[in-house]
Amino acid sequence: MSLRLPWTRTPLKINDITSTLRTLWGNNECEARCKLATAYRLTHFFGWDELVYGHLTLRVPESDHLLINPFGMHYSEITASSLVKIDLSGNVIHKGTSDFSFQQTGYVIHSAIHGNRPDLNALMHIHSRAGVGVACSVDKIVPICQHSVFIEPVSYHPFRGIVTVEAEKLELAENFAAPSKCLLMKNHGLLTGGGTIEEAFFRMYMFHSVCQAYIDAGYTQRTVPAYKIVSQDIVKSSLKAAAGQVGSPGYLDFRALARQLDSAGYETGYPY
Amino acid sequence: MSLRLPWTRTPLKINDITSTLRTLWGNNECEARCKLATAYRLTHFFGWDELVYGHLTLRVPESDHLLINPFGMHYSEITASSLVKIDLSGNVIHKGTSDFSFQQTGYVIHSAIHGNRPDLNALMHIHSRAGVGVACSVDKIVPICQHSVFIEPVSYHPFRGIVTVEAEKLELAENFAAPSKCLLMKNHGLLTGGGTIEEAFFRMYMFHSVCQAYIDAGYTQRTVPAYKIVSQDIVKSSLKAAAGQVGSPGYLDFRALARQLDSAGYETGYPY
Amino acid sequence: MSLRLPWTRTPLKINDITSTLRTLWGNNECEARCKLATAYRLTHFFGWDELVYGHLTLRVPESDHLLINPFGMHYSEITASSLVKIDLSGNVIHKGTSDFSFQQTGYVIHSAIHGNRPDLNALMHIHSRAGVGVACSVDKIVPICQHSVFIEPVSYHPFRGIVTVEAEKLELAENFAAPSKCLLMKNHGLLTGGGTIEEAFFRMYMFHSVCQAYIDAGYTQRTVPAYKIVSQDIVKSSLKAAAGQVGSPGYLDFRALARQLDSAGYETGYPY
Amino acid sequence: MSLRLPWTRTPLKINDITSTLRTLWGNNECEARCKLATAYRLTHFFGWDELVYGHLTLRVPESDHLLINPFGMHYSEITASSLVKIDLSGNVIHKGTSDFSFQQTGYVIHSAIHGNRPDLNALMHIHSRAGVGVACSVDKIVPICQHSVFIEPVSYHPFRGIVTVEAEKLELAENFAAPSKCLLMKNHGLLTGGGTIEEAFFRMYMFHSVCQAYIDAGYTQRTVPAYKIVSQDIVKSSLKAAAGQVGSPGYLDFRALARQLDSAGYETGYPY
Repeated sequence: MSLRLPWTRTPLKINDITSTLRTLWGNNECEARCKLATAYRLTHFFGWDELVYGHLTLRVPESDHLLINPFGMHYSEITASSLVKIDLSGNVIHKGTSDFSFQQTGYVIHSAIHGNRPDLNALMHIHSRAGVGVACSVDKIVPICQHSVFIEPVSYHPFRGIVTVEAEKLELAENFAAPSKCLLMKNHGLLTGGGTIEEAFFRMYMFHSVCQAYIDAGYTQRTVPAYKIVSQDIVKSSLKAAAGQVGSPGYLDFRALARQLDSAGYETGYPY
Repeated sequence: MSLRLPWTRTPLKINDITSTLRTLWGNNECEARCKLATAYRLTHFFGWDELVYGHLTLRVPESDHLLINPFGMHYSEITASSLVKIDLSGNVIHKGTSDFSFQQTGYVIHSAIHGNRPDLNALMHIHSRAGVGVACSVDKIVPICQHSVFIEPVSYHPFRGIVTVEAEKLELAENFAAPSKCLLMKNHGLLTGGGTIEEAFFRMYMFHSVCQAYIDAGYTQRTVPAYKIVSQDIVKSSLKAAAGQVGSPGYLDFRALARQLDSAGYETGYPY
Repeated sequence: MSLRLPWTRTPLKINDITSTLRTLWGNNECEARCKLATAYRLTHFFGWDELVYGHLTLRVPESDHLLINPFGMHYSEITASSLVKIDLSGNVIHKGTSDFSFQQTGYVIHSAIHGNRPDLNALMHIHSRAGVGVACSVDKIVPICQHSVFIEPVSYHPFRGIVTVEAEKLELAENFAAPSKCLLMKNHGLLTGGGTIEEAFFRMYMFHSVCQAYIDAGYTQRTVPAYKIVSQDIVKSSLKAAAGQVGSPGYLDFRALARQLDSAGYETGYPY
Repeated sequence: MSLRLPWTRTPLKINDITSTLRTLWGNNECEARCKLATAYRLTHFFGWDELVYGHLTLRVPESDHLLINPFGMHYSEITASSLVKIDLSGNVIHKGTSDFSFQQTGYVIHSAIHGNRPDLNALMHIHSRAGVGVACSVDKIVPICQHSVFIEPVSYHPFRGIVTVEAEKLELAENFAAPSKCLLMKNHGLLTGGGTIEEAFFRMYMFHSVCQAYIDAGYTQRTVPAYKIVSQDIVKSSLKAAAGQVGSPGYLDFRALARQLDSAGYETGYPY
């Protein structure tokens, strides 16, 4: 559940990278920082954020460093330069410009997956209302609508409590194996990955939408009748059809959303 | 699910047609463009839009040309002159003022129906939350409330995957035969048509409302008890009663909504 | 479902009565007009309005004249002087300052009840999402929560189609007999009444809230278990306890809401 | 259900304590007043408020005096200096700067618990939509998600009607015994407590979220299957893991939210 303030306030610039920091970080990292901070803001504007919890991470291009949110900042406060840069072992490479550090839980979940999935440069983990409702009730998500096409195959991870121990990393990595890009964390929430943050965001949109459909159709309470399940043949042919469309998954969508932020004064720094 | 930005930004004018384009297109097409762009904006403000997906189309008066959204633009960005004009075979007649083209899926669905239904000058296809929930679970929609009066008789189309092939056009046309103006696209979403865009919008409002009632009443999970179904006699007498009211279906409603946009600075160009 | 515009626009004054009209109408009617227009706006801000439909009426003090909305205006447009004044037979006494007239359906429903219930000076009829969901599924509303205390005893009216004939007036009047102030219009929506518009609004808030609880608790799908029903003894003792609180029902609430409108610039004209 | 105004109005300052009142009340009480008023505003911005009802109370540090809302003010109007200071017997110590007094119901519930639970300096009682839905249907709340970790063990109090009599205080105190910090008031709503208002707010967020999950998972309609319940072992290990995080429960969250209010111009007076 998201705080819905009467936004009388002046938009807080997303791209707040000074020229000094730009020199230090380089253009590729700066672009990654702007895109990830934009994704945090969009998560808020879609109402999927929860106080200061959840995590979105993005690999700094051509490195094993991750960008992650400073733990304690509201998603509506996160800017490009405030993001924390850590390595896969949890060492802080650059603490960013905020006074906060990263959260252990976020580090454990995200580094486990980034370390095991070179194909996933971006990860997104949220506790959206529909995501939690489904995570508490559904054993296996079957394709029920057009949105489902973009989340197949779904992976599953059982709830072992708040994730803070290295021991759970191995199990997480095993449970979220390629080519799956959507993980239902049982009793907990949703996690998606993508080659780009645009893709991870797009898959989260679709994953969350499928969860809403599950709830509204009553499939959190009963098994989906066989004749209502979309066949794997249709899923595959649809993916082929969608692949023929413009750009990589989420490319058009994320750009369209970033443009909205820019025209409202947020200065995303998105490279259109 | 719709992006809910803190709209600090200046309203983006809907009627952005220059005098040069007005001369080229003529007054009738310009009016159609303004009305259709207004419908895209309203779809956003009601929260029925989904990233850059879904389509609303309007026939250019006295032609077989269709106006459709440039694929890649957010519904809150669409203006009168940005709409793409295509013919029923998918040829671009005028690409409008944006850098985008139209989407194949939208073309296939809408041209199939426009080609077969001369009575439907306007079509509206959305993936609203309630619409998807019902599309995934309900076999046949029966009249359960006053809103139902305005959607009868409902048609149905099965899910064959993302629609991009000409082959599906014939089946779509057959499944959405006159006099039906509301089509439940199974596992997918809602589609409505009207003689005018005002009517298509009005019917979508009613269709979506019936879907909300289905979900809240639990009829996505069980059959509607016979004694709760509104009889066809009542549906017919109600239609007669409603017909005696001011203007064509949706006329009063759409004008009232357009006035709200205009008084908020959107400059719809709506001819009151 | 309510249109949620980015309200960049200047607040539209509710109290727009000129001194000429004030002289014509007198202070009592002007106060009634301001209060009723405020109730229309609040209905919009709570998201209970539906395009241009539904009706709120208020008796002009010490008369058999009713104030009703001009049919075709959005609830966010309605002002004190735009309200139409009719008598119980549907004659227009003063058409107000808008270009619209009243709706036959609204006249039939409201005049039937006002004519039969001298205790109810104010009536409110809406199609809120939760109200419609319950109206389509529940046979009898039993007390399930604290809100229920304020809606007992609930009356019921079956759906005969869109109400436009005088014939239905008698049945409506019989079904909504004193002391009931809350009427569930089956397959249709909610209706409440009060000695004041403040009371009618308060009862609608409570009625709508009970409907939300019905939906969320799943009682639209199954019978309320006996041990979950609030006993009539508790309902009665609670009413007594509540009666000891400040002012008449809804007095404090409505004033608090009107103050919010006033401090946002709407100029309600509410006599604090 | 919360009023959602188009907030064109200037933010109303939360910290409105004059220097005269600051001298009278002292710094500790002033800080408590600012924090409690901030919590009222946040309750509104999360949509958990209901007209003028519900109560949040905070003990004045090192005293048996309670701060409570003036009954009749909307949550969006409450400021630091408008709060009423009462003792545990319901005597007004300082009426604050508003024209209203406190509500008997609020006094009875809150003083009963504050008097019996020296560990709970802050209490929060609301009628949120999800909270009421669960209060009307669920007998016992079991842990179903990560949020559940922060509300265990839940206590229960049956509905005896609107609480205004001293007689119910004893039963309330008994039912809400340490170490429980979350009370489900059957047929009524939610109540949480904390050593600080930050904690009470955090626990309410989690309690409300669990209720949303209950509704969406359909657990208001059926028993939670045993294999979906989070074990007490996991609850305990999670609490231990969470305890290792920064600050006391809710500390980071409340500060993040207060910062949002401050950057939007509300001047919370929160001591960062």
